[in-house]
Amino acid sequence: MDEQPGPRERIVRTAAALFLARSYTGVGIAEICVAADVRKGTLYHFFPSKAEIGRAVLDWHAAAFDRHFTRAERDSGEIGALVGAVTRVQTGMEGRFGRIVGCPMGNLAAELATTETGIREHLAGIFAAWEARLAVACGRAGAAGTLRDGVDPQRMARTLLAQVEGAILLAKAQDRTAAEIVADVDGVLRLHLRPEVTA
Amino acid sequence: MDEQPGPRERIVRTAAALFLARSYTGVGIAEICVAADVRKGTLYHFFPSKAEIGRAVLDWHAAAFDRHFTRAERDSGEIGALVGAVTRVQTGMEGRFGRIVGCPMGNLAAELATTETGIREHLAGIFAAWEARLAVACGRAGAAGTLRDGVDPQRMARTLLAQVEGAILLAKAQDRTAAEIVADVDGVLRLHLRPEVTA
Repeated sequence: MDEQPGPRERIVRTAAALFLARSYTGVGIAEICVAADVRKGTLYHFFPSKAEIGRAVLDWHAAAFDRHFTRAERDSGEIGALVGAVTRVQTGMEGRFGRIVGCPMGNLAAELATTETGIREHLAGIFAAWEARLAVACGRAGAAGTLRDGVDPQRMARTLLAQVEGAILLAKAQDRTAAEIVADVDGVLRLHLRPEVTA
Repeated sequence: MDEQPGPRERIVRTAAALFLARSYTGVGIAEICVAADVRKGTLYHFFPSKAEIGRAVLDWHAAAFDRHFTRAERDSGEIGALVGAVTRVQTGMEGRFGRIVGCPMGNLAAELATTETGIREHLAGIFAAWEARLAVACGRAGAAGTLRDGVDPQRMARTLLAQVEGAILLAKAQDRTAAEIVADVDGVLRLHLRPEVTA
């Protein structure tokens, strides 16, 4: 039997889904309370401000992405893990929402980075952590001789992360599929690998 | 002596700046009227809905980007024009706003694609036009023998566009500079070119 999640987790999950379906600014506290079935006082007990809900939602998504990445590393190896994790996450959200709704981090970055400093800084930390994790994988691929001559692992990590965010954003705008996002990211990964590795 | 722009153009320019500085949802019609120095009735005469202001702002940005691209083609050649246009546009906005505020198209795509169908479709058309223009440039580079073996010009165009959007989005989140965005896009362009071309 599933245990009913507690009020804090219900708030975070509900806000995460509403922000993805619409936007951060477009969703009100009262609506989150109704959908999560909590009283306003309970919500403010856990989250004194909407920005704190935003940060908790980002942490929740980041932790989920990390878990998918770790699982994908086991399935597809370290250098293919990003493509595997993006496949899992975007296909999952496509199924749940019936369309591409964007990257939860990218969405809030685009909407809030100029106005909500705390959220921007939180996002910067999450993106930096991903870039660092990717750079380790790219560095190991370089040491194993699978990267083309002249490829810098740090720049490769940054390029891959930018491609993920850009491909998801364009798919959201152009109503494309998760499979097309995956093909875009995989294409850029392959540009960095020796042709004999990708053949 | 500069001629004072008419009310329609003042509304579009003002809304464009306010949307970039904050977001679409975060800016109200009343505020646009005050900042553009027009009455509400005048605004509604030109734009019966906020979404129509959004579309006009997107057209205004897209036309500006096209002009920068055309100028960059003359300066840097067709295949370098994207990097040149991104340099001009992002450096210009960085100077005006004092920070990276995002791609005007990408920002509205992230914020509105799931809720404002008319704006999403408008954005999809603008992105498709850019992709087509880039694909022509990539196709000509391929015919001239400057692309690596196996590079598909259509996919290359899509990759470049995604990289532009992703690099700008990450720069906005991580408070990076226009110069870093340009380096990211240039790096991905070079991955597609024969090494002897980029040396």
